[in-house]
Amino acid sequence: MFDIEEAVDWLLRLPMNRKTEPIFLEEGYGRVAAEEIKADIMVPSFDRSAFDGYALHSEDTEGADKEHPKVFPVLGVIQAGDRIRYELPQGKAFRIMTGAPIPQGTDLVVKHEDTEFDENSVKIFRSYKAGNIMFAGEDVSEGMVLLREGDRLNPAQIGLLTGQGHDMIRAYKKPMISFLSTGNEVRDLSEPLDFGQIYNSSYYMLRGFLMKAGTRVRDFGIAGDETGDLSYRLEYMLSESDMVITTGGVSAGDYDLVPDAVRSIGGEILFSRVSFKPGGAMLAAVKDGKLILGLSGNPLAAAVGLIEVGMPYIRKLCGETDGIARKFEVILKEGFHKGSPRRRFILGKSEFSRGQIYFHPVQHQRNSTVSSLYGCDMIGEIQGGTGPLQAGESIYAHFLP
Amino acid sequence: MFDIEEAVDWLLRLPMNRKTEPIFLEEGYGRVAAEEIKADIMVPSFDRSAFDGYALHSEDTEGADKEHPKVFPVLGVIQAGDRIRYELPQGKAFRIMTGAPIPQGTDLVVKHEDTEFDENSVKIFRSYKAGNIMFAGEDVSEGMVLLREGDRLNPAQIGLLTGQGHDMIRAYKKPMISFLSTGNEVRDLSEPLDFGQIYNSSYYMLRGFLMKAGTRVRDFGIAGDETGDLSYRLEYMLSESDMVITTGGVSAGDYDLVPDAVRSIGGEILFSRVSFKPGGAMLAAVKDGKLILGLSGNPLAAAVGLIEVGMPYIRKLCGETDGIARKFEVILKEGFHKGSPRRRFILGKSEFSRGQIYFHPVQHQRNSTVSSLYGCDMIGEIQGGTGPLQAGESIYAHFLP
Repeated sequence: MFDIEEAVDWLLRLPMNRKTEPIFLEEGYGRVAAEEIKADIMVPSFDRSAFDGYALHSEDTEGADKEHPKVFPVLGVIQAGDRIRYELPQGKAFRIMTGAPIPQGTDLVVKHEDTEFDENSVKIFRSYKAGNIMFAGEDVSEGMVLLREGDRLNPAQIGLLTGQGHDMIRAYKKPMISFLSTGNEVRDLSEPLDFGQIYNSSYYMLRGFLMKAGTRVRDFGIAGDETGDLSYRLEYMLSESDMVITTGGVSAGDYDLVPDAVRSIGGEILFSRVSFKPGGAMLAAVKDGKLILGLSGNPLAAAVGLIEVGMPYIRKLCGETDGIARKFEVILKEGFHKGSPRRRFILGKSEFSRGQIYFHPVQHQRNSTVSSLYGCDMIGEIQGGTGPLQAGESIYAHFLP
Repeated sequence: MFDIEEAVDWLLRLPMNRKTEPIFLEEGYGRVAAEEIKADIMVPSFDRSAFDGYALHSEDTEGADKEHPKVFPVLGVIQAGDRIRYELPQGKAFRIMTGAPIPQGTDLVVKHEDTEFDENSVKIFRSYKAGNIMFAGEDVSEGMVLLREGDRLNPAQIGLLTGQGHDMIRAYKKPMISFLSTGNEVRDLSEPLDFGQIYNSSYYMLRGFLMKAGTRVRDFGIAGDETGDLSYRLEYMLSESDMVITTGGVSAGDYDLVPDAVRSIGGEILFSRVSFKPGGAMLAAVKDGKLILGLSGNPLAAAVGLIEVGMPYIRKLCGETDGIARKFEVILKEGFHKGSPRRRFILGKSEFSRGQIYFHPVQHQRNSTVSSLYGCDMIGEIQGGTGPLQAGESIYAHFLP
């Protein structure tokens, strides 16, 4: 039986056929870059004033104080957007606006509120060192890497790229994931619920995680527990998408038929069980270079399987370079009194307090309950062979994706 | 001059005209609920088997052990989706599949891997207490609040709501924000850059934050530094949207004309400066019950102003009940050597280690640099009147929205 790390590693080493497309940066938030972009131009491309005030040569201010202010004739106003490269003779000043180009060789802007001025002159009351100038290249220097292939675009990167004048970049296409629910007891939302039946809420819940990860999802409804039907659907779904996810039908019962259906269409099963709870009863198979991920029919178990085993692969399928969740130690705020003979994931809620990260575990977590996930923002991890845990002990955890 | 808390409070107390619409839960991830929903039905609605195995009365297993196994006749198979309420006579067993309805009054399922069985009988090798049954209402009890007005829908809530058979809910419409950049030096991405000019990268960066918050954004381009033009645009933008954001033109210079334009269209200015750096030179005004938020022309200052002052209002405009970022203490990983006579926000990067939250501050942060934001995931806060800070000292911080 695979450990999670082995299972994830297997999936990440599968060859992938990812497609790219040009996108507008205006709509680019959250998209994944398919190219590296370096800065072609410095930003800003010229020395700019950081404030409204007066451009001066700092050495001209030497010796000024309250009793002996210095007065400079003002040669004119430099406005933001002025395209003239002014020169500032020694002993003179320009009035200058925020963002306007500094006269060549000038090293100082004195804020207007620190001066007395009329239209033709400005008076200063102390000596100044060079300052209040934003120099060319101070934000972005030429050749600086602004975007790496596999980065998920955040606002700062969008700012840096558009600062260069880029309006489009090449990004990975959002992968299409086909989703199939199985189980004779599972009913679609449009149908009334009879005794012995449940709604396919797992699909809608898992779709939320997939949407957040940046995939598209196509729903193929609910398949009954008959292999024939399932095989046809799986084959069709594979042809229509980049990956297939199923729920239910993966454990060892008579009616757990996803593995049979996968075999019948010539799929190669990579693993059919991973060593953790809840959700370890899950299957991964490959057919035509595409992954079929079979998750548990129990909602919480399916969510944990998707997040812990499926998500790094799905993030890579989206184009991301680093799709493995950042794990770190957290301090248990309450104990967790069940022993964990096998590796166990527990849902929980973070609390940040005085520089420390605490974890409130959900106490009565069950594989089949969605409500265990409600209000949680983290998943904690208890190593196999661990006894009951006390408040104050540490476990590893990561944020929900 | 307002403190941030006063400014935020002012904005949050403004009357708002938010609209709602029905949405499909299938596309509901990240939308904000406009209604409370309680559970109408228990989930599951019947007692279900948690495993594939055999349904038995636990008292019938008493006295069984390896040497003296007990054998039960098997009356039949109960499959998931079976709509018959079976009864199990004392001393008998049903084969039962995961998710199938438990026979009435039965309290035990023994996993099939713990038994020996043929078609007609099952043998068990120890005595059992009641167990392996998921009882009706164990996930969701009747009357449980599944959704509160103002909640931003997460996967768990979508699962809980669809588990009830809901396919639609009422949500708040995504607000439309009109965006206007000002400044004679600012150029659109489609234009070549001359000496003294910069691209309007602030718009694209801030749009990223707004998209993530769940608003729609309409770009009204760049206005030159002429009041007339600006007034017309502001008035038009207000009529076309729920809120207006501008960049540039809000500080005290001759060409900072947003306040004049706001006044000329009869807008009531709430504040035109907030006491923090960078970005405190910002304006809030109301006209026809809609907010005009004037941000700094410097990209980083604009981002901090948007996040610290604007975001709680924008989240509320989206419908969220609790839009104020969660702040907590973090430990400085490196010192911050500048004093902070006024309240100052510094960008930084989080590090989680051994149950503690560290903060790596950006050292040479400048109002006008986008690159200061690159790689950061947090904003830290230094109170006014604070001297240089050493590594190991604590400050308050929150995650970037």
